[in-house]
Amino acid sequence: MSFLYKSDPVRGAVWAQRFSQQLPELPFRIWPDVPDPHEVRYLAAWEPPADLATRFPNLEVLFSTGAGVDQFDFSVIPETLPVVRMVESGIVNGMVEYVTLAVLSLHRDWHTYRQQQQEGRWQTHRVYPASSRRVGVLGLGVLGRAVLDKLHGFGFACAGWSRSPQQIDGIECHAGADGLQAFLARTDILICLLPLTDNTRGVLCKTLFDQLPCGAALVNVGRGAHLVQDDLLRSLDEGQLSRAVLDVCEPEPLPPRHPFWTHPQIALTPHIASMTQPETAVDALIHNLRRHQQGLPMTGLVDRARGY
Amino acid sequence: MSFLYKSDPVRGAVWAQRFSQQLPELPFRIWPDVPDPHEVRYLAAWEPPADLATRFPNLEVLFSTGAGVDQFDFSVIPETLPVVRMVESGIVNGMVEYVTLAVLSLHRDWHTYRQQQQEGRWQTHRVYPASSRRVGVLGLGVLGRAVLDKLHGFGFACAGWSRSPQQIDGIECHAGADGLQAFLARTDILICLLPLTDNTRGVLCKTLFDQLPCGAALVNVGRGAHLVQDDLLRSLDEGQLSRAVLDVCEPEPLPPRHPFWTHPQIALTPHIASMTQPETAVDALIHNLRRHQQGLPMTGLVDRARGY
Repeated sequence: MSFLYKSDPVRGAVWAQRFSQQLPELPFRIWPDVPDPHEVRYLAAWEPPADLATRFPNLEVLFSTGAGVDQFDFSVIPETLPVVRMVESGIVNGMVEYVTLAVLSLHRDWHTYRQQQQEGRWQTHRVYPASSRRVGVLGLGVLGRAVLDKLHGFGFACAGWSRSPQQIDGIECHAGADGLQAFLARTDILICLLPLTDNTRGVLCKTLFDQLPCGAALVNVGRGAHLVQDDLLRSLDEGQLSRAVLDVCEPEPLPPRHPFWTHPQIALTPHIASMTQPETAVDALIHNLRRHQQGLPMTGLVDRARGY
Repeated sequence: MSFLYKSDPVRGAVWAQRFSQQLPELPFRIWPDVPDPHEVRYLAAWEPPADLATRFPNLEVLFSTGAGVDQFDFSVIPETLPVVRMVESGIVNGMVEYVTLAVLSLHRDWHTYRQQQQEGRWQTHRVYPASSRRVGVLGLGVLGRAVLDKLHGFGFACAGWSRSPQQIDGIECHAGADGLQAFLARTDILICLLPLTDNTRGVLCKTLFDQLPCGAALVNVGRGAHLVQDDLLRSLDEGQLSRAVLDVCEPEPLPPRHPFWTHPQIALTPHIASMTQPETAVDALIHNLRRHQQGLPMTGLVDRARGY
């Protein structure tokens, strides 16, 4: 019986050390060092091998090393194999930091002041109370809820939208296709934290942007494929959207000379909003593994019908 | 008996309306409309007239319309006249937003990613956990405490320094001249929220910067005169400081062609971190006025010996 890790090898060294301390009885292997494929019971991967079903016939669990599983090709993963997303405090904290930074920078006109500094211009703009700024989060999973909790603490007027109805203290919750219009109509700063599925691909499109108040801003920290890129450019040009902060693109890295690089209303970061912290990630995974071995349900178990 | 307001007239209109609703018995005047100077019992001003002692012989309280009183010339203010700083939620919330934005932008390399975007470069940098980032606040008044409370909620390693010893849950507190060195030695991001007094003028100087860890960053949201400008430029050039975020300057506006405008390691904003919100400011002042009329101590009463 062994545990196989197939992802960034630098982080893998941290994993190996924590496994040897906390689960010394389980041999830990780093891809491609796999002496006996039949021994592999657990695989943690960002991109699993396409032949995992035949290569590792005794696999019991497939763990994603990231918060999402949209990079997995489910057609080659046996239907009976449990697939588990990474849910760990490092991912959550990083996302909360990034989204708070993005929202505060929009709320407090940071881009305008950077521009004014370049022009040598000393000019103040009114500070609006956070309570008059309506922030909305698409997607009420662990990340969406943590982001809303933090923004609520600044006094922003917060709302969330999810596929199925949810209740969160202090947050105006909307749900389903019927609830989307009302959610968008009251949202000045829209944050996408949806999982990427067939239902959500291309959701950030002109039809959606047109339902926001004129001059709204977008923060996409979901996946690049949530966004219809030409629609964003058009809505910015038309003034329907005022600004966008994008941490994810399609494809990544964004190709040279793509218009996003130089667009004055777009702030772009290279998919760094949130990264698994190796220390907290491996601890969360070992905790999950112990639950599995005890017959308890694992945190982040993927429902394949939903796709997340 | 009347109340005289001498500050921005646009905000004054908001004050007039709130006074007429909440204190209809007290005539509210906006400078320079002062029918009878002998009637003026209360003066709220950013810059009081130099002859206030002779002009308003029956003045009972002088209120500052801002968080500080360093713009007051105390030599022309009768020693027996109570002077009151503005303490109101709008100032506190604005400051918490601005400092959080500044600290998160430093913590998450926002300037580097802006630079990379201009260069069309997709390159990630490691995300460090907030717990490994040591933030320190100089000045533990209402603003310093509120800022520390918020940053502590992100998991930053937080410390504060004040002139006299204080205790705050979860915050490493240092005090007095003896405590300054240990405070500085553990501070990666230094935030100045001191009042401006004869003791604190020029406190942000090379001697202080040299006691920080190499590569530390500075956020000055106190007053421009806290900072020795040439020392900041020198410490940035030498690499002892990595970056500075400055909301205050000396003088303001910062003159054209001042080196701060174009320095690549300085982010400059035109004293907008925190502004009194007219609605919350007038409510706080009326609350204070009622306390004064009932013989109760006022919030923000200035101790002239300390200077704040």
